Amino acid sequence: MTRKTSPRPQKIGLPPGSPVYFGQTPPGPTEITYFHYTSEEVVEEKISSLAEVFTREKKEGITWLNINGFQNVEAITQLTQHYQIHPLVLEDILTVDQRPRMEDFERYLFITLRMFYLSGQKKEIIDEQLSLILGENYLLSFQEIPGDVFNPVRERLRSGKGRLRMLGADYLAYSLIDAVVDNYFLILEHLGEKIEVTEKQLIEDPSPENLSAIFRLKRNLIFLRRSIWPLRETINTLLRSESKLLSPSTLLYFRDVYDHTIQVIETLETLRDILSEMLDIYLSSQSNRLNQIMKVLTIIATIFMPLTFIAGIYGMNFRYMPELNSVWGYPAVLLLMTLVAGLMLVYFRKQKWL
Amino acid sequence: MTRKTSPRPQKIGLPPGSPVYFGQTPPGPTEITYFHYTSEEVVEEKISSLAEVFTREKKEGITWLNINGFQNVEAITQLTQHYQIHPLVLEDILTVDQRPRMEDFERYLFITLRMFYLSGQKKEIIDEQLSLILGENYLLSFQEIPGDVFNPVRERLRSGKGRLRMLGADYLAYSLIDAVVDNYFLILEHLGEKIEVTEKQLIEDPSPENLSAIFRLKRNLIFLRRSIWPLRETINTLLRSESKLLSPSTLLYFRDVYDHTIQVIETLETLRDILSEMLDIYLSSQSNRLNQIMKVLTIIATIFMPLTFIAGIYGMNFRYMPELNSVWGYPAVLLLMTLVAGLMLVYFRKQKWL
Amino acid sequence: MTRKTSPRPQKIGLPPGSPVYFGQTPPGPTEITYFHYTSEEVVEEKISSLAEVFTREKKEGITWLNINGFQNVEAITQLTQHYQIHPLVLEDILTVDQRPRMEDFERYLFITLRMFYLSGQKKEIIDEQLSLILGENYLLSFQEIPGDVFNPVRERLRSGKGRLRMLGADYLAYSLIDAVVDNYFLILEHLGEKIEVTEKQLIEDPSPENLSAIFRLKRNLIFLRRSIWPLRETINTLLRSESKLLSPSTLLYFRDVYDHTIQVIETLETLRDILSEMLDIYLSSQSNRLNQIMKVLTIIATIFMPLTFIAGIYGMNFRYMPELNSVWGYPAVLLLMTLVAGLMLVYFRKQKWL
Amino acid sequence: MTRKTSPRPQKIGLPPGSPVYFGQTPPGPTEITYFHYTSEEVVEEKISSLAEVFTREKKEGITWLNINGFQNVEAITQLTQHYQIHPLVLEDILTVDQRPRMEDFERYLFITLRMFYLSGQKKEIIDEQLSLILGENYLLSFQEIPGDVFNPVRERLRSGKGRLRMLGADYLAYSLIDAVVDNYFLILEHLGEKIEVTEKQLIEDPSPENLSAIFRLKRNLIFLRRSIWPLRETINTLLRSESKLLSPSTLLYFRDVYDHTIQVIETLETLRDILSEMLDIYLSSQSNRLNQIMKVLTIIATIFMPLTFIAGIYGMNFRYMPELNSVWGYPAVLLLMTLVAGLMLVYFRKQKWL
Amino acid sequence: MTRKTSPRPQKIGLPPGSPVYFGQTPPGPTEITYFHYTSEEVVEEKISSLAEVFTREKKEGITWLNINGFQNVEAITQLTQHYQIHPLVLEDILTVDQRPRMEDFERYLFITLRMFYLSGQKKEIIDEQLSLILGENYLLSFQEIPGDVFNPVRERLRSGKGRLRMLGADYLAYSLIDAVVDNYFLILEHLGEKIEVTEKQLIEDPSPENLSAIFRLKRNLIFLRRSIWPLRETINTLLRSESKLLSPSTLLYFRDVYDHTIQVIETLETLRDILSEMLDIYLSSQSNRLNQIMKVLTIIATIFMPLTFIAGIYGMNFRYMPELNSVWGYPAVLLLMTLVAGLMLVYFRKQKWL
Repeated sequence: MTRKTSPRPQKIGLPPGSPVYFGQTPPGPTEITYFHYTSEEVVEEKISSLAEVFTREKKEGITWLNINGFQNVEAITQLTQHYQIHPLVLEDILTVDQRPRMEDFERYLFITLRMFYLSGQKKEIIDEQLSLILGENYLLSFQEIPGDVFNPVRERLRSGKGRLRMLGADYLAYSLIDAVVDNYFLILEHLGEKIEVTEKQLIEDPSPENLSAIFRLKRNLIFLRRSIWPLRETINTLLRSESKLLSPSTLLYFRDVYDHTIQVIETLETLRDILSEMLDIYLSSQSNRLNQIMKVLTIIATIFMPLTFIAGIYGMNFRYMPELNSVWGYPAVLLLMTLVAGLMLVYFRKQKWL
Repeated sequence: MTRKTSPRPQKIGLPPGSPVYFGQTPPGPTEITYFHYTSEEVVEEKISSLAEVFTREKKEGITWLNINGFQNVEAITQLTQHYQIHPLVLEDILTVDQRPRMEDFERYLFITLRMFYLSGQKKEIIDEQLSLILGENYLLSFQEIPGDVFNPVRERLRSGKGRLRMLGADYLAYSLIDAVVDNYFLILEHLGEKIEVTEKQLIEDPSPENLSAIFRLKRNLIFLRRSIWPLRETINTLLRSESKLLSPSTLLYFRDVYDHTIQVIETLETLRDILSEMLDIYLSSQSNRLNQIMKVLTIIATIFMPLTFIAGIYGMNFRYMPELNSVWGYPAVLLLMTLVAGLMLVYFRKQKWL
Repeated sequence: MTRKTSPRPQKIGLPPGSPVYFGQTPPGPTEITYFHYTSEEVVEEKISSLAEVFTREKKEGITWLNINGFQNVEAITQLTQHYQIHPLVLEDILTVDQRPRMEDFERYLFITLRMFYLSGQKKEIIDEQLSLILGENYLLSFQEIPGDVFNPVRERLRSGKGRLRMLGADYLAYSLIDAVVDNYFLILEHLGEKIEVTEKQLIEDPSPENLSAIFRLKRNLIFLRRSIWPLRETINTLLRSESKLLSPSTLLYFRDVYDHTIQVIETLETLRDILSEMLDIYLSSQSNRLNQIMKVLTIIATIFMPLTFIAGIYGMNFRYMPELNSVWGYPAVLLLMTLVAGLMLVYFRKQKWL
Repeated sequence: MTRKTSPRPQKIGLPPGSPVYFGQTPPGPTEITYFHYTSEEVVEEKISSLAEVFTREKKEGITWLNINGFQNVEAITQLTQHYQIHPLVLEDILTVDQRPRMEDFERYLFITLRMFYLSGQKKEIIDEQLSLILGENYLLSFQEIPGDVFNPVRERLRSGKGRLRMLGADYLAYSLIDAVVDNYFLILEHLGEKIEVTEKQLIEDPSPENLSAIFRLKRNLIFLRRSIWPLRETINTLLRSESKLLSPSTLLYFRDVYDHTIQVIETLETLRDILSEMLDIYLSSQSNRLNQIMKVLTIIATIFMPLTFIAGIYGMNFRYMPELNSVWGYPAVLLLMTLVAGLMLVYFRKQKWL
Repeated sequence: MTRKTSPRPQKIGLPPGSPVYFGQTPPGPTEITYFHYTSEEVVEEKISSLAEVFTREKKEGITWLNINGFQNVEAITQLTQHYQIHPLVLEDILTVDQRPRMEDFERYLFITLRMFYLSGQKKEIIDEQLSLILGENYLLSFQEIPGDVFNPVRERLRSGKGRLRMLGADYLAYSLIDAVVDNYFLILEHLGEKIEVTEKQLIEDPSPENLSAIFRLKRNLIFLRRSIWPLRETINTLLRSESKLLSPSTLLYFRDVYDHTIQVIETLETLRDILSEMLDIYLSSQSNRLNQIMKVLTIIATIFMPLTFIAGIYGMNFRYMPELNSVWGYPAVLLLMTLVAGLMLVYFRKQKWL
């Protein structure tokens, strides 16, 4: 969640459409998982050689190839060439900082988006690029690293529950995107909880630590926003594209995902509003605290400065100071001091400083 | 009024269109109220078995089924299946954090919006989801909890006053939405009064309590805004949809509701502007108060430091200090001190600090 | 100019289109003024009975009925029924917090807008709702309270100067709206003068009073803005409506009013910009003043604290302090003190604090 | 450059289209300059009687009449009547606070914009209204005061250099507008230089004077913006109007002016950004300075208060204070004081305050 | 990277389309490089006389003329005349402050954009204008100064690797624009690194130097933004133009560049957001530091003022002060002082100031 700029510069000088991996971390080993299903049966396998895939694929039903890790660029190139994918698409798949978008190449649709999920006990936010190629009866999905949000979909494929196995590759693509968007809600809930914790601390006892927590959360939202805003547009393009690859009944489901995306965006904006508000609260609490500190200082100084001055007068060594010799001198001065201090306290109470 | 993120995450892994309740509070017991009316007569009943409804419904006239509480998901599913409602619509009804929107399924329209009303003596703001399904001669309304804003509509149905009983289900839908929007005005008036009270306190005596009141009101407005903004678009979609379910004369009434929604939104924005202004007033009053405090401190210090210094000089124990032995020494020093203090006061008056 | 929320809530429970007055002040007595004119002659009368109007009206020429005050709701209802006005329009006329807008009912146009004018010596801003119904040869105008901006129009009607008497009811409607918009300029000029006065005071001697003046002016602008922004859209709708009630030559005049409205809006925005700037000036003057105060305090403290310390040293009662017995001790210490004070002053001058 | 509101209010009560001058300054004497040119010859004259013009004008070629000063409203009215200009246009020409805009009256185009130029040694910014009426072979230009930016155009007319004399009145109109827009660059460069000077001072030694300079520059930009933004729209309307008065080749030139206008606007926005940044710099320098001042105060107080306290202790007059009688008492106390002061200094260096 | 306003003013008075150079620096010597290639061969030469070019050009294949430096305006004029380029285009090429834009002149396309690259060890950002004229089988490119980002393109031309030599002049234009946009990523990465460094310093030890670094970076982004925003629109115009000069397959590549431009813009906006955040962090750290300073001052003053006062009391010279003569007087006072100081410390710990 901390990429600020893209790794694009390394690419300068290469001709466009070059099948080379570009990312901030080295590419992981390439693993290919093969799913083939009809309404009756489902086959699931880890693939070692692409040739295997190409022979099998002639059967009826839907094929889903999930590619994980971009170390073996050659195999990936071979695969996309087999499906006659445009080299620019391959380049975009391998450059893992794409802006979510969708492109219609008639024979297939290319969709790229960002997948976020929480990982491990520390609930770290994992951010990776997901690229989908949707053809007539196949779906290719490309991920950067192992681990994803698709296990419920796989489970539904295996068990045959729900409509998934009865419908086309477009419904499978919908199911994957829906899983991704559902996880956005999870991330937002996670951030929302962190915001609530920070807010409570802020109200009880504002400290500079709260401030940096606010800024950290704010930055997280900036990056999420950058990934999720274009997704709205992406799905909208998909809804308006009159591609034959998308059946009308699936479009209804995509409309649902579209609504979810808008809801994610609005939640995000609300969280941003709350964070700005918390910053305002912090700053005004700072200023309030300064006022408190200054009040204490002023009260102390205003009481003790006149008193010290009075004491100073009678500490002078003039030979002729009649008060010094009076028996009542000392008690009178003590009384005067008490009076002065009392008057000051009355004044401060009037000013509502006490 | 404090939901920040949606309860969506719990749903991850379920196939889309699953009829399961999702909300932040457990679902209430399901109660179904049955209204059937023609221009001549009206029947009103609490329903115990759905079968009852299905047999009766063949008569002429308009049927209004109000479903309250989502505990009995099975009955609700049965009901929507009877009316041939799409499973995604049922899912949206049961997921009670929907963004206001409207969808046209030709045979029926699905409208979801948020209902706000004040409850009890404390005038707590209650926020629940209202879903409407408008068919040719029926209206289904789904609410989360008992209590709503529809009693005046029910009263008009029972008494037969006004046009309500003579017109179709679309006019009934309009009447419900109109009642919801009218209550938005009430909520805003309620918040407007709270804002006025806070503002008065702020001007008389700004305190950190005012600040948190401002932020509480601000957050209320953020959440209201999030619910009301999309309603405008929703009603606009409805006005532009060329659905046969909406008669031209009812559309005229919906146009009126549309105008009210815009008025609600503008009032909301005005209240937001006023709150930001109040925040500015608070902050500048803080800064002004700091200036006041510092002036007091500076005046005291500036007067007494030189005086104490003078007293300090004549408190020194040098053997050869001619002033100490002079008879006029003491009065002269007192005079000098008075002069210094006087000069300081003149300076402060010049600086307009006194 | 201080309505924050609308009086709408009182209305909850009434069927839509009910002819009942809703406003923040009680309705004034209903007065109807009747104007009838052709290019040759003009008749002007205060009307007591509506029947009178209905008989007269058959003549040729243009009829202008101005209704003032909504106490006699019955008479107004009768009047609108005579002209076959939709009940929702009547409701909108009587609910005096309408957003400016225009609706085309084919046989007539309904236009509602807000009229502002300065009243009395204190130049109080009066805000009332003006509703116009423009038919083929009649114009109905509805106002809340006596007093308006139409006297110049009446004068032109009486004298027959200008084109007014020769043209249709649409030109009369234009003339009234033009008079309203011209008065917006007057209001803005009035506020502009107040802003200039406040600005001058702010630059000469910033005080918290300036601040509240700024906020008062800002709030005035917020309310004006809320009334004037939608007017632009209203007139634009009117320009684009292809109503037969508007002749092409009158549309040219409405285009002129449209330009004026834009100019009003831009002036308003400029005034808003100037006010925000004044707030910035105030705040930075506050902060500057704090710096000044702190400089005085620091200078005084920095000079007198070391001096008092030196005096304190020689005020100690140690038996063995050789300086105390020296004849030059006292003058040497005084010299030292002068040196210390001098060095401090040099330092402050270097820091540009003096 | 300081008009805030328009002089419109004076006009209230007059029928629309009245040919009366309205401005903030009294109108200047009316001077008419006559240019007539073909590709072969050019005639240039100061006109005393309009009759003269009307007789001459029948010849071939292009006529340019430049009217300067609106004192003689009658002559101007006569002139516009001769060219059959709509009275509303005349009114707009005479009301010298028009928003830049363009209107197509088929037989002629009316364009109004604002002309800015620097005048005299003090480089005062002069702001006046320029109205153009472009007919088939004539151009009327109306200015408020003597002095304009058209001398280079006149020179090109006289010398016959460039394409100006060979092309139509539309190209002449383009040349005038181009000259106006070129002067916007000059004004911006002038303001840009002032901004740079202020910025340098701000960085070297921030003072309240810089602040008021920033606000003065900001206000200048607000007013420029108000005049230049609508010009973009104006020229765009002109480009899209399919008027026969504009030849395709001239449109190409207007497209160039359009690009320049956008560039002016972007420069303006950049200058605005820089000014807001300078305000931020000023405010943070203020706050930084306050910190500096407070550090000095705190260092002084923190060093001398404990020392003075120690001195105070040994200034007490108790009979039984063993230290006072010790020979090493005085040096020991001096040592203690040095230690305390030293420790404080070490602490401040740790805090990086020194 | 510091041009604020354009050098346009110098141009005032010249007829439009004058071939004169306008820039902030004097023009460099004009160098022309000639590339001619087919899929089989490539010719690359430095050109001394234009006549040479004109004779050769009749051959098949693509010609790329790169013109560097605008000293020899005459030669450039001759060249553009040979290609029948419109004089306004030539003027725009020579006025090196153009806003990125594209214009379609049917026979050729004119594209102007800004080229940024890092130069030398100090990684200074070089900013120059690049103008392209794309004809049927030629491309003219105009640069201000030697040094550009096209070496990889030249290398690919020479080596014949990739598709470059097989495709038309439009693909060459694409390759150049792609190289320019790729360098934007590099610039952003460079700025992103600087931002990261500044941020680290800011968090460790905020100082006014960080502030000026923030403002410097902010200004860099303002200028980049001004150059890159319009490029998006430019490429969009290009994509939508139905020019025959652009083949469909090349348009696919331009769509890719378009996506990159959007990505550059979004990265830029993210960097801007981060910078504003850093400014907030700086300001709140300032305010926090002030609080810290004031706490130290208040603690010191609050502890030592009462103590000094007590010492002052027993430093008074009254004859009758019973405590002074008591043996336990001195230790009792010391105890009292310790108690007072202890109480103060307890109070400060309660306030969480220690």
